[in-house]
Amino acid sequence: MTHFETNFPVRYYETDQMGIVHHSNYIRYFECARNAMMAAWGYPIEQCEADGVTIPIVSVGCRYHRPAKMGDVLRITAEIEKVPLAKLTVVQKVYNASGELLVSGEVVLGFLNKDTGFPVRCPDTLVKIIEEHLGSEQ
Amino acid sequence: MTHFETNFPVRYYETDQMGIVHHSNYIRYFECARNAMMAAWGYPIEQCEADGVTIPIVSVGCRYHRPAKMGDVLRITAEIEKVPLAKLTVVQKVYNASGELLVSGEVVLGFLNKDTGFPVRCPDTLVKIIEEHLGSEQ
Amino acid sequence: MTHFETNFPVRYYETDQMGIVHHSNYIRYFECARNAMMAAWGYPIEQCEADGVTIPIVSVGCRYHRPAKMGDVLRITAEIEKVPLAKLTVVQKVYNASGELLVSGEVVLGFLNKDTGFPVRCPDTLVKIIEEHLGSEQ
Amino acid sequence: MTHFETNFPVRYYETDQMGIVHHSNYIRYFECARNAMMAAWGYPIEQCEADGVTIPIVSVGCRYHRPAKMGDVLRITAEIEKVPLAKLTVVQKVYNASGELLVSGEVVLGFLNKDTGFPVRCPDTLVKIIEEHLGSEQ
Repeated sequence: MTHFETNFPVRYYETDQMGIVHHSNYIRYFECARNAMMAAWGYPIEQCEADGVTIPIVSVGCRYHRPAKMGDVLRITAEIEKVPLAKLTVVQKVYNASGELLVSGEVVLGFLNKDTGFPVRCPDTLVKIIEEHLGSEQ
Repeated sequence: MTHFETNFPVRYYETDQMGIVHHSNYIRYFECARNAMMAAWGYPIEQCEADGVTIPIVSVGCRYHRPAKMGDVLRITAEIEKVPLAKLTVVQKVYNASGELLVSGEVVLGFLNKDTGFPVRCPDTLVKIIEEHLGSEQ
Repeated sequence: MTHFETNFPVRYYETDQMGIVHHSNYIRYFECARNAMMAAWGYPIEQCEADGVTIPIVSVGCRYHRPAKMGDVLRITAEIEKVPLAKLTVVQKVYNASGELLVSGEVVLGFLNKDTGFPVRCPDTLVKIIEEHLGSEQ
Repeated sequence: MTHFETNFPVRYYETDQMGIVHHSNYIRYFECARNAMMAAWGYPIEQCEADGVTIPIVSVGCRYHRPAKMGDVLRITAEIEKVPLAKLTVVQKVYNASGELLVSGEVVLGFLNKDTGFPVRCPDTLVKIIEEHLGSEQ
């Protein structure tokens, strides 16, 4: 399993009138962590797109355990368990600074040829990076 | 099963650099439809909160079939299959103007006492409204 | 002066922990009204972009008079006072259902050739539409 | 003049179909920098609100010079030129990693008693902090 994590504070506009972070934002936090992971891997999403492959979302599942609040610095994790073929599954979690699990989820990503719009396999560059990380962390 | 639907156009800021609506926004569309439903039922969310009950999200599941684009007028549906006790499950879908299914999902809602933060049952007012709608549509 | 207006309800996720609509959203409401105006004129923004011209923002000014709240149905106006050359100025306002002025502002738009990224004049199609509306409302 | 700055990357969902950061997000970046400044000062916004004072926005002005893109790490600055009485003016700028100025603006903030909703003076705690920073940077 690969493991990546990143940290950032809650933003004021992400709170709602319940006084907590609006639930839709965790889906965005998940994406921030995935894109920070790709950048850390040396293959940022904008490079992948420039290489002709976009990565649309196939499905998202998200369970809300505890709310995040203004002032919280969040830790967002992204983990991959197996080498992707047509689809890539990322397991994601959000913790607060006390280490409490706030939200857990999983995101399934697909791959499209940017010009034709047709599904393609996960780009080789990305497959190799994931294989390396899976290998090094076993 | 109760059935409610509402329509609105894609907003420009909801698109991303893939040229499609960013996937996080469908979670927001789902909520817009649920709140329009509560308003249409004569018991808007702000009244529910004023009555001392907030409705946080327990879980969201979302499957993306086709992308929405700028210019699309969306139809968002919300359906309830049974009377809520501690939790309320809403089945939701997003269609474009051609009737194509873009996104399907289900949202589970909980109920909290606004002052204590403790879980409570679905408010009677809401239970009665849902019972009526379940009855009338059988 | 041309005049256009559109109506829509506040969305829950647009509120923040002050219990009011977050100030950044009015900039988005302004855009929604401008794009609804272009669609109503028969020349939607996506058509303009397909014709090779994008419309980035040059500047925004925004004054907040009263807050919008969940439950409010807003009326957003867009007015143009003169035919655009290199830039188009739109005067915008947001009212609640009681007719109270909530926010007023002005947005200056530019025009870019989509392929080269260089500034161009306002497209003829748009100039003609604005001229017609200016003429008919004098 | 006080000076504060913070850095963070563009988020994918902040881009739009022009392939650049949507203009409304800079208003949000401004706020992120102001709130990071207050946290760095030891008086975070959530503490200020807990002390009974909310800080709504009076006006925003924003000029867009160059677009931010996915992959950019932004530097956002917040500067204060004089001790606030009823209102606080913050001058704000957004730069990319090359030091190019992308957006400049100014935000005027007011202060409200959280319970009554009536305008109040800038809280003493905040006045003192700003006075100290103005003094130390002269």
